[in-house]
Amino acid sequence: MATGMLLVCGLALFLTIKSNLLHSQQFTISFQRPSDCSVEQFYDISSQSCVKCGPNQSTSATGLSCECVTGFRVLATNGASITCQQCPLEKPAVTEDGYGCILCPGSLTEQGTCQCPSGSILVERDVQGNPLEEARCEVCNGAEPALSAPNSYGDRYQTQPSLPVQSAWFSTNLYSSAAACLVYTNLTACQALGNMCVMNMHSFSSVANDACGLYNTIFRATAALGSTQDISYWRANLPWLYYGDQPGLANRVLQTEPLPTGFSFKGRNRNTDINLVAAVYNTRGDFLQWEKVGGNNLQALSLSRQHVLWCFLMVTVVLRSHLAPILLRMSDLLRVYAEPLFYDVFVDLSRGEDRRLLPLPTRNLNQEYNRKFINQGNLNDWYLSRRVLLVDTLSGREKSLGSLPKVIRIASSIRIGFQLVPGTQKGQVFPPLLSVTYSDVLITAPNTQTVSVSFAVYYEMDQTEAHMKTDVSNQGTENEKGNAVAIIALGVLGGVSVLYSLVKTASWKRRIGSPLIDIETVLKFLLFYAGDLANVFFFITVGTGLYWLIFYKAQHFVSVLLPLPGLQEERFIAYVGCAFALKTVQFLHKLIQQLSVDIFFIDWERPRGKANKTIQGTPSPVSIWRTYFVANEWNEIQTIRKISPTFQIMAVLFLLEVVGFSSLALRDPWSDLQRPPQSYAPPYSLTLRYGLAATLWLCIGLLQIIFFTAFHERFVEDKICQFVDLCSISNISVLLLSHRCFGYYIHGRSVHGHADTNMEEMNINLKREAESLCGQRGLLPNTDTQTFQISITSRLRLQYDRILEPLSRRNGPSRLVDAASGHPFDQSTKAYHTMNRFLGSVIDHAHRDMEYVVRDKLFFERVIGMEFLEPMDKSIFYNDESHSFSDVLFYGNEATLLIFDTLFFCVVDLGAQSFILAGVLTYVQQMIFRLIRNGIGRRNLANKTLVDQRFLI
Amino acid sequence: MATGMLLVCGLALFLTIKSNLLHSQQFTISFQRPSDCSVEQFYDISSQSCVKCGPNQSTSATGLSCECVTGFRVLATNGASITCQQCPLEKPAVTEDGYGCILCPGSLTEQGTCQCPSGSILVERDVQGNPLEEARCEVCNGAEPALSAPNSYGDRYQTQPSLPVQSAWFSTNLYSSAAACLVYTNLTACQALGNMCVMNMHSFSSVANDACGLYNTIFRATAALGSTQDISYWRANLPWLYYGDQPGLANRVLQTEPLPTGFSFKGRNRNTDINLVAAVYNTRGDFLQWEKVGGNNLQALSLSRQHVLWCFLMVTVVLRSHLAPILLRMSDLLRVYAEPLFYDVFVDLSRGEDRRLLPLPTRNLNQEYNRKFINQGNLNDWYLSRRVLLVDTLSGREKSLGSLPKVIRIASSIRIGFQLVPGTQKGQVFPPLLSVTYSDVLITAPNTQTVSVSFAVYYEMDQTEAHMKTDVSNQGTENEKGNAVAIIALGVLGGVSVLYSLVKTASWKRRIGSPLIDIETVLKFLLFYAGDLANVFFFITVGTGLYWLIFYKAQHFVSVLLPLPGLQEERFIAYVGCAFALKTVQFLHKLIQQLSVDIFFIDWERPRGKANKTIQGTPSPVSIWRTYFVANEWNEIQTIRKISPTFQIMAVLFLLEVVGFSSLALRDPWSDLQRPPQSYAPPYSLTLRYGLAATLWLCIGLLQIIFFTAFHERFVEDKICQFVDLCSISNISVLLLSHRCFGYYIHGRSVHGHADTNMEEMNINLKREAESLCGQRGLLPNTDTQTFQISITSRLRLQYDRILEPLSRRNGPSRLVDAASGHPFDQSTKAYHTMNRFLGSVIDHAHRDMEYVVRDKLFFERVIGMEFLEPMDKSIFYNDESHSFSDVLFYGNEATLLIFDTLFFCVVDLGAQSFILAGVLTYVQQMIFRLIRNGIGRRNLANKTLVDQRFLI
Repeated sequence: MATGMLLVCGLALFLTIKSNLLHSQQFTISFQRPSDCSVEQFYDISSQSCVKCGPNQSTSATGLSCECVTGFRVLATNGASITCQQCPLEKPAVTEDGYGCILCPGSLTEQGTCQCPSGSILVERDVQGNPLEEARCEVCNGAEPALSAPNSYGDRYQTQPSLPVQSAWFSTNLYSSAAACLVYTNLTACQALGNMCVMNMHSFSSVANDACGLYNTIFRATAALGSTQDISYWRANLPWLYYGDQPGLANRVLQTEPLPTGFSFKGRNRNTDINLVAAVYNTRGDFLQWEKVGGNNLQALSLSRQHVLWCFLMVTVVLRSHLAPILLRMSDLLRVYAEPLFYDVFVDLSRGEDRRLLPLPTRNLNQEYNRKFINQGNLNDWYLSRRVLLVDTLSGREKSLGSLPKVIRIASSIRIGFQLVPGTQKGQVFPPLLSVTYSDVLITAPNTQTVSVSFAVYYEMDQTEAHMKTDVSNQGTENEKGNAVAIIALGVLGGVSVLYSLVKTASWKRRIGSPLIDIETVLKFLLFYAGDLANVFFFITVGTGLYWLIFYKAQHFVSVLLPLPGLQEERFIAYVGCAFALKTVQFLHKLIQQLSVDIFFIDWERPRGKANKTIQGTPSPVSIWRTYFVANEWNEIQTIRKISPTFQIMAVLFLLEVVGFSSLALRDPWSDLQRPPQSYAPPYSLTLRYGLAATLWLCIGLLQIIFFTAFHERFVEDKICQFVDLCSISNISVLLLSHRCFGYYIHGRSVHGHADTNMEEMNINLKREAESLCGQRGLLPNTDTQTFQISITSRLRLQYDRILEPLSRRNGPSRLVDAASGHPFDQSTKAYHTMNRFLGSVIDHAHRDMEYVVRDKLFFERVIGMEFLEPMDKSIFYNDESHSFSDVLFYGNEATLLIFDTLFFCVVDLGAQSFILAGVLTYVQQMIFRLIRNGIGRRNLANKTLVDQRFLI
Repeated sequence: MATGMLLVCGLALFLTIKSNLLHSQQFTISFQRPSDCSVEQFYDISSQSCVKCGPNQSTSATGLSCECVTGFRVLATNGASITCQQCPLEKPAVTEDGYGCILCPGSLTEQGTCQCPSGSILVERDVQGNPLEEARCEVCNGAEPALSAPNSYGDRYQTQPSLPVQSAWFSTNLYSSAAACLVYTNLTACQALGNMCVMNMHSFSSVANDACGLYNTIFRATAALGSTQDISYWRANLPWLYYGDQPGLANRVLQTEPLPTGFSFKGRNRNTDINLVAAVYNTRGDFLQWEKVGGNNLQALSLSRQHVLWCFLMVTVVLRSHLAPILLRMSDLLRVYAEPLFYDVFVDLSRGEDRRLLPLPTRNLNQEYNRKFINQGNLNDWYLSRRVLLVDTLSGREKSLGSLPKVIRIASSIRIGFQLVPGTQKGQVFPPLLSVTYSDVLITAPNTQTVSVSFAVYYEMDQTEAHMKTDVSNQGTENEKGNAVAIIALGVLGGVSVLYSLVKTASWKRRIGSPLIDIETVLKFLLFYAGDLANVFFFITVGTGLYWLIFYKAQHFVSVLLPLPGLQEERFIAYVGCAFALKTVQFLHKLIQQLSVDIFFIDWERPRGKANKTIQGTPSPVSIWRTYFVANEWNEIQTIRKISPTFQIMAVLFLLEVVGFSSLALRDPWSDLQRPPQSYAPPYSLTLRYGLAATLWLCIGLLQIIFFTAFHERFVEDKICQFVDLCSISNISVLLLSHRCFGYYIHGRSVHGHADTNMEEMNINLKREAESLCGQRGLLPNTDTQTFQISITSRLRLQYDRILEPLSRRNGPSRLVDAASGHPFDQSTKAYHTMNRFLGSVIDHAHRDMEYVVRDKLFFERVIGMEFLEPMDKSIFYNDESHSFSDVLFYGNEATLLIFDTLFFCVVDLGAQSFILAGVLTYVQQMIFRLIRNGIGRRNLANKTLVDQRFLI
């Protein structure tokens, strides 16, 4: 009992282990392919493995079964396994079906079957199907009415006019096709002959009798049949292969009459596709079908068998884009294009019931005539043709049609060119031209080899016509107009800017009080000119970019074409680069000017204890803290701007990358901001990128300026006004000399006489002024004008310089270092007090020989920025309500800074094609220049005003 | 002469016009297709147009030629045009080739040829090919050894055991295939039978005798033949269609032993592809070839004819991604899959010479057993199978094989699932499972109809095992470990943060000098707890994200799988959202605290002219400008931070979008930063995005803090130190009360006694101090410590409040308006002077009952941020070298701000999946809070220090 249980358990265990072992093998099998089998093995398609053949057997040609060796007949079959039996001596031959033995009338073949002489067939059974004892060779009757001949296998008769379709290709079929076409007018044969001509690249010479030669011979010989479809180049019964050979015919075909429908991008009649259809023939000349070539859907395309190549074409129709070459695997080509197909391509002009086709003229760049490539030269010499093939894997098979081709011929470059009708506004195009370039590829390693093919659909305009007219680009009327405007603007503005720069130079000469024209003057003129020219370049490039953007993106019909990447765009970028370089020069020039401006704070406060002086000898000193306060504020407003530069960057990035404006710079005529992520994205146009970025930047800049000027400065805070007010409250005037004899003056004399006082008095003063209980702040009595532009006499300037002389002489270690020797301190405080007294007395008219007058600037003086009067005897103070002293700050140069930033942003973007990088670098650039302006400006302020740098925080 | 010339010219003109007319037609032709031709027309493939047939003719079946009507023979052919002649009465029948007339032994067919009885063939010529006068019907000899029978066309004998291949499919071939398979063991017939079973979805019942039923019958009947390839489910000579029907077999097959090779992403053994190969059979059962399924190159794929569907599969191998459904056009399907192909799919395990295949188990979701869908239920009930088809356009053809199918069957969903071995470190997977779902599509409009198919390759882990262990995600060991750590951390840190918040609340209670636990206390505790919990959530989510980033992106083998989009990721995002919400509460709490801080500037300056007072009665007033200066500086440092927030945004955007770090957040295991633009981009993982963005933000923030602390503040400028120095130089102390009884004190008493002096004296003072010729700045003699944390007694605070009381009472219109009534001015200056005197005397120990002591803070007090001593009788001044008064500024709260910004950035990004938008919004957020902090902080400063707001510029 127990033993029995043990046994049962053991058995169960064993079975479990066996089952697990089986499973642990994971059912893996050995990977054998038919090619892995040896000559004595066949490939068993059931077990997917090689199996040994029985005795007296060898592998069949397919490798999937065994067959009896020569002299053996099949005795019995069971599935793939057969039994073979040797034929007896009296019947030494094996029948054709391999199942019987028979006596031969003649000799035996290598395969051990009977052989009949050529022209006769082998008969092994009678008409009832009974096997004969001895095989017979029957002779075919070639005479009428039988017209019989042995078929290609030699086992059946067939009627003669039919074509043999299975044999080695060119050698076998060329003459038979030609003969069948000419003699019997066999339509299929004619097509087959035409296809052979296409495989020969449409090439012929006047002497040789190759495929195209034969075609042409037949074409001429059948002239009497007339043409078909009313097209004189299309002979009845023949395929249409050539347009005529008149000189200039290509030109006439291509450029005489536009297509009836134009391209339209917008609105109801949105029509951006040219529908292509093709009649498809196979090599044998059979008509297969009409096919729609291409489509707009890449995914569906991948399914369309033989037409993959074509399909890529229409994806980019209406885009002037060059698709990158596509790599195709040779093995795929051989599999997919086992049989070459031939396409007669038409443009489908059908509208509703009216179904019309327009043949697409083809330019075969490999076409030879008398051994010359005629289609690679001048348009007038072209021989246009019809019918194309994509891949020819057939004619390269050397020995038999079953062998691997030695070489394949592939349409390696296919271009469909649409030429816009000159001056069209409706997107009209001439009949498109299909240009095909074929390449022969030697097959070396079909499994790893790849072939590169490229496709392009492009537009063009007649380059010869527009070539001379413009410089920036040369494409058609709209473009020409735009470009002409740009060129004219460039010329006019360039001239104006020379004049303007000359005026600026003259003004500068006057302001530095020097009448001599020296090398510095020329240099200065060049610097001014750089700035003005930069503006001209900038506005013309922005205008051009904006023009492209508007006219290209807003067009309903194809009429404006973008400049091609290449020369035209490079030139455009060169202009932008010029604008940027010149603007940089101007910006640096202004920066350096600002960093070396002369400034002094005049303290009007006088010691209170004047009366005490006589008693104690020491008046309580006037506190310097008001000056510190004013200097500190001046230091802080050095780099404020009319806009927020960081907000500017953020807003531009937001619009471009988040809202999706950057899509507008794509090379397609659509103006959608958000594209589906998987859709085909054409490349960016640099011109559009520039136009877009610059326009956005300028627009946001202007909006910011409007916001800050109209709202923020009026209702929140105006740093410049605050500073002027502060001067007034703190009883301190500011003298700024931006040039030797020109500058600005902010009159800050307190209306209360004293500002160096305690909180109580300050509050009372402020309150009194708010209630208008005291005098007005202006320099002249009863005026409010506190700010002036000043032209000072050379005498005044000389005196100014003389006071500062002892300071400027010590150009040793900077005053930044904490402590210095006592000497400079003394000098600087002495100079400060002297200067304070001197300037105060000048403003107070206390100096007889340094008088000044106050007047208004003439309108024209304002406009051209130059003073007409020279300050000879008296200095001149011009009323200046507009706080133009901010010209020595960033604040007053917003235009220059904004354009510089715009150009910087655009140039980085043009270089890197990344708005984000451009934004980041623009931020860094702004930060660096702000640090420079602040740091060096602070040092200059400390040097010039003698205020210790430690208080400028 | 002239007339002649005129004639010539006229002719030339006419010719030109004619030529132009011709050209102006543009060669357009009418678009006609074979289907457009009527019954009396044939389609001329040369002219691509419909042409009328001659008399006594009708269109042939192909439509491409004409044929003679019944009773007419072809007399002559010329190309496509034929001439027909009626057969004479004595020879009324037309021969099979159509060219002769003949007398019949029996009746005539409908086509007018002779008809022979079944079992016999029609003979019209003798063996030499001569036409007979009268046709003969010859009977086939069906007996051995001839074994002949009429072929399907009835015109030739053929040996019997061969299969008819051209006929209506299922009805014709099912039984013959089964018979040929069973009786003659015909391998091809067996495969064909198997294919029919596959077309029947592997479905069978125990009663019906359909394809699968027949297959199973033969399978059982041939048990004696044994199995092939050592696989018991694979019967010799039969295709392998089913795994066994033992319960649980599917489980054992799928989850017993892993594949010998794992997935590896990095290093030398980079191995991310599972190579699939398939043995391909056609419907007739012919073995076609071994094919590699798929590839990594989408472009090449598009060429691979029947395998497009397969190809998409391998593109995403190793990505756990679901491709969007693909729409296929019905017309393409019909063209490409005219013949269904059948695939036996294997995993190729070959390594070098050792070529092994592993059969891929297939789960056919449409498989029925006894009319139940067995494979849609529990894994243990599945019947795994083999062999799949992609598109079956054959079995849906109702009448003949040439007709359009009424319905097609398509593999609408194909999924290959790899299951990771639990606990694997080497990327080991179990044998993948191929799941196929077929759909039947009724063909309604083949040209416009589309069919949706979807593919996916995915990984999974045994969900049941890991389900209970973790919360955040549940995938395998590594993941579990990480999650366990996260969960433990969450618990521990959550607990600690409760404690910490309690301590903070206690500290706060002490600092406001209130011992009561009231509702406000609870609220405060919740606020503190919000902040601490936010930190816990933040660091755990960042840690988790970083963990995924590192372990997923750095893994060599597949062992870590990302959380799937869906529940797991949603939960993660919920945690992040919590962190952000809590952090916002903390941030707003701190902001409000800062905006209501109490501050006063104590001016130590005493009038100089004390001696004079007695003489004149009015001492020269102490200038308020130093106070203005200090207040102005304090106003400016309110919103400075330890880092530059804009630079932070720019740097993060630069790294993410320009350098390309954002690629790291893609759902694939590669860590390349720059991807080729055309390559397939998997979707983003939100978890990775968060981990990446937060880590980058924190890293750059830390780098900035290090830079500013270690370099900028030491060598360029330190605004906080500058402020302390300024206090000292300007002879002004600052008292800050952040809580009722706690605050900070900056001791700014000038070591020179006076600061309200002229430039000369200021410079001398600075120089003396630099040369250490004067005392030290500290509060206590001979110390340098200027900054203190202070715990003040309630008494002191009461006195402080009492002085300010008259001001706080007038809560009318803000002092922002320019002028106010004289009353508040008086009050405020009075209060200012009183406060100045009072606080000065307190610091000078002049108040007996408001004494204070100076001591160091204990280490533990520093750590937990709470004072142990309560200021009962004396206030306590704690030395504080670390300028902790910046806690009431942005500067001292950098950690909170940085984490808040990080979370803000990440939350925006998680919502919008755009780093740029996140950057822009973060900038706007920072700007808004800075404006709020500055604006309200300035008003608070003016209110508390009584300095007119107009000086805070």
